[in-house]
Amino acid sequence: MTGTPTSRERIVDISITPVAFADPPLLNAVGVHEPFAIRTIVEVITDSGTYGLGETYGDEAHQARLTLAAEALIGTDIFDINHARTRVDEALAKDSSAGGHGMSGMITDSSTLDRVFSPFEVALLDLQGKKLGLPVSELLGGRVRERVDFSGYLFYKWAGHPGHADDRWGEALDPAGIVRQAEKMVSEYGFRALKLKGGVFAPDQEAEAIEALATRFPEVPLRIDPNAAWTVETSNRVAERLASTLEYLEDPTPGITGMAEVRSSASMPLATNMCVVAFAQLPEAIAAGSIDIILSDHHFWGGLRRSSMLAGIAETFGMSLSMHSNSHLGISLAAMLHLAGSTQNIDFACDTHWPWKNPEDDVVAGAPFHFEGGSLEVPKAPGLGVELNRDRLAALHQRYLDCGIRNRDDTGYMQKLDPDYQALAPRW
Amino acid sequence: MTGTPTSRERIVDISITPVAFADPPLLNAVGVHEPFAIRTIVEVITDSGTYGLGETYGDEAHQARLTLAAEALIGTDIFDINHARTRVDEALAKDSSAGGHGMSGMITDSSTLDRVFSPFEVALLDLQGKKLGLPVSELLGGRVRERVDFSGYLFYKWAGHPGHADDRWGEALDPAGIVRQAEKMVSEYGFRALKLKGGVFAPDQEAEAIEALATRFPEVPLRIDPNAAWTVETSNRVAERLASTLEYLEDPTPGITGMAEVRSSASMPLATNMCVVAFAQLPEAIAAGSIDIILSDHHFWGGLRRSSMLAGIAETFGMSLSMHSNSHLGISLAAMLHLAGSTQNIDFACDTHWPWKNPEDDVVAGAPFHFEGGSLEVPKAPGLGVELNRDRLAALHQRYLDCGIRNRDDTGYMQKLDPDYQALAPRW
Repeated sequence: MTGTPTSRERIVDISITPVAFADPPLLNAVGVHEPFAIRTIVEVITDSGTYGLGETYGDEAHQARLTLAAEALIGTDIFDINHARTRVDEALAKDSSAGGHGMSGMITDSSTLDRVFSPFEVALLDLQGKKLGLPVSELLGGRVRERVDFSGYLFYKWAGHPGHADDRWGEALDPAGIVRQAEKMVSEYGFRALKLKGGVFAPDQEAEAIEALATRFPEVPLRIDPNAAWTVETSNRVAERLASTLEYLEDPTPGITGMAEVRSSASMPLATNMCVVAFAQLPEAIAAGSIDIILSDHHFWGGLRRSSMLAGIAETFGMSLSMHSNSHLGISLAAMLHLAGSTQNIDFACDTHWPWKNPEDDVVAGAPFHFEGGSLEVPKAPGLGVELNRDRLAALHQRYLDCGIRNRDDTGYMQKLDPDYQALAPRW
Repeated sequence: MTGTPTSRERIVDISITPVAFADPPLLNAVGVHEPFAIRTIVEVITDSGTYGLGETYGDEAHQARLTLAAEALIGTDIFDINHARTRVDEALAKDSSAGGHGMSGMITDSSTLDRVFSPFEVALLDLQGKKLGLPVSELLGGRVRERVDFSGYLFYKWAGHPGHADDRWGEALDPAGIVRQAEKMVSEYGFRALKLKGGVFAPDQEAEAIEALATRFPEVPLRIDPNAAWTVETSNRVAERLASTLEYLEDPTPGITGMAEVRSSASMPLATNMCVVAFAQLPEAIAAGSIDIILSDHHFWGGLRRSSMLAGIAETFGMSLSMHSNSHLGISLAAMLHLAGSTQNIDFACDTHWPWKNPEDDVVAGAPFHFEGGSLEVPKAPGLGVELNRDRLAALHQRYLDCGIRNRDDTGYMQKLDPDYQALAPRW
């Protein structure tokens, strides 16, 4: 009755390829998105000639750490995820660089090991799934939903990058512009929840935009994320103004203590992907009572299996769960779908920057993702269910080489246009 | 490059078979082990004709819940562990029975869902492993060790059950008897850590036994587990007496608050498998600072995957981890080996009652477990790596039918012999 042992499959090569893709001038609390977003594509190749895919940040210090990790992983069995993590941990002891957190300075205290190991873990699960004929969602315990709901991610933005033509989204610098953007996004993608990236204009102007969205979309849950641009006092004032309007308030103010202060008086749940971005921060945040909702992100929580563990911690400690996003390509989107698809307590529609990317700007083959009603189907093919298009990979790598961006720097880009600009947290 | 999707494999039948095996008269805080320990063997059969194995408690109320769960699981895909758990959760809504915790009243607040789902989850992982040609340890992230260390589990005991011949271990009712037992156990199994089940005699007599063990085995880490038989005051007094002697002190006193009080003054780490036996108890215990070491047990923590999650929680919150045991057979031992083999933070040698069982009393085929230096190898065959011996299963089931024991009742058995006996917690 015992099955035949499967043949071993080991890593023989790993390619680390930085890529860049066009990104609109999306405004946030620390500046504005540069004309190109940078990412790194990790391709793990085994002695059977199969490849597994991962995607992560593109910053140079991060790439250097990925290279150290990749060297340490040659020879590893694709099922030895625990051992692979230990090897990467040991390899990173050689690293003394700083930076490379992929967040343009907004978050700097995620775990270096978890952040570096994540794309390799995703690639190993992709390889396991391909070898076993199973989608990654089944390696994570099985799908609990066939489709994953996303929220429409609204940004204040210029009509186009300075010196370039307007993009297809146009300008959004006031409540009316945000409502127009939401109408377009809802009409194209069907989102049934909306999130506004705040921290750009004075809090009352952003509250006005939320109120305008509530008037235009009275049935749609709304969120605002000022990326810790507000003091506790300002946060409390805005929370009171938007008490009946927000589904949740995301990272109004910096730090575990500040968030706990706001949470003690705000009437709506508080969410974070800033004050708790690593397992090491959970004990203090839970003791302080800082948060209601963790916005998980497998890119900094150590991959898909550790993100499943985070979901279990959230459930155990009575916190809700949803998912954070940075600008990303199709490999990360597939990974997010498998994770959300196999996680019982995804309590709110997940974030994604997907609509801000040109559909043709990707490294995956075909067009595997189709939004309906703001949701995407969890891929059912073995592994992640996405394949590499090597022509596209080469093209986006060339764009990386040409664009000159080596580290995400929303603040530096803004300062080129407005030398007096300063990133302040909190600003108001 | 994409793998071929694996064929689906669904549950078509589940057998639930109560068994009994001879157990010596081991004394504890609530009485004495009856002449037979009872367990339930769960055999999950799929449409490919493969079976997966799980093992759990034998109490009647538990068996009734297992039957409800089994009915709900027919038709489930072997990879849909998340969905299977939901089905069992729904099925248990029909259950209004009490008891059946398998612990003879020592622990009554483990999660019913986790306790009932556990053997099915283990069986599903066994089936997955057999289908995929992978040992369960690799489904849990891969082996981090080839062998798992166990501690020698010492008990006060009578020479034999009243009215029966002496067993091969003989009497141990004082420090000299415990030292003799330890010598025999160390000589036969090679254990390099020793644990004394206490709560039987006056605390100072048990402390004396620990001191006698320390004199005889000066290099061996020692633990005592009085199963919450002591008050906080008594615990503190014994902790002070054994300050330089104990590796850790296990469950000296009842409850999260009492444990926190002892922990605030005891010099050694405090371990538990009593005051925290469910995820729901973790927040309060962590906030109170009740424990240093969680003794996990996949039988009440919801199976192997949730026990892995518990390991992650322990790591996140700065707690150490080891493993608890009840009287068990080879299926549970194999599951414990796969779990410990794939868990990085097994910080102390695990518990097992294995030496107290006659080697021939088992349901697994052959003799797959060989102690060397107190450790066992993690099985490498697909699945759990143990096979059912149906003759042995039939024989142990017949023994269950014949023995008349339907619920573990250490207290009731003791009262038959000593009508004045009362289970008291704390007793001293």
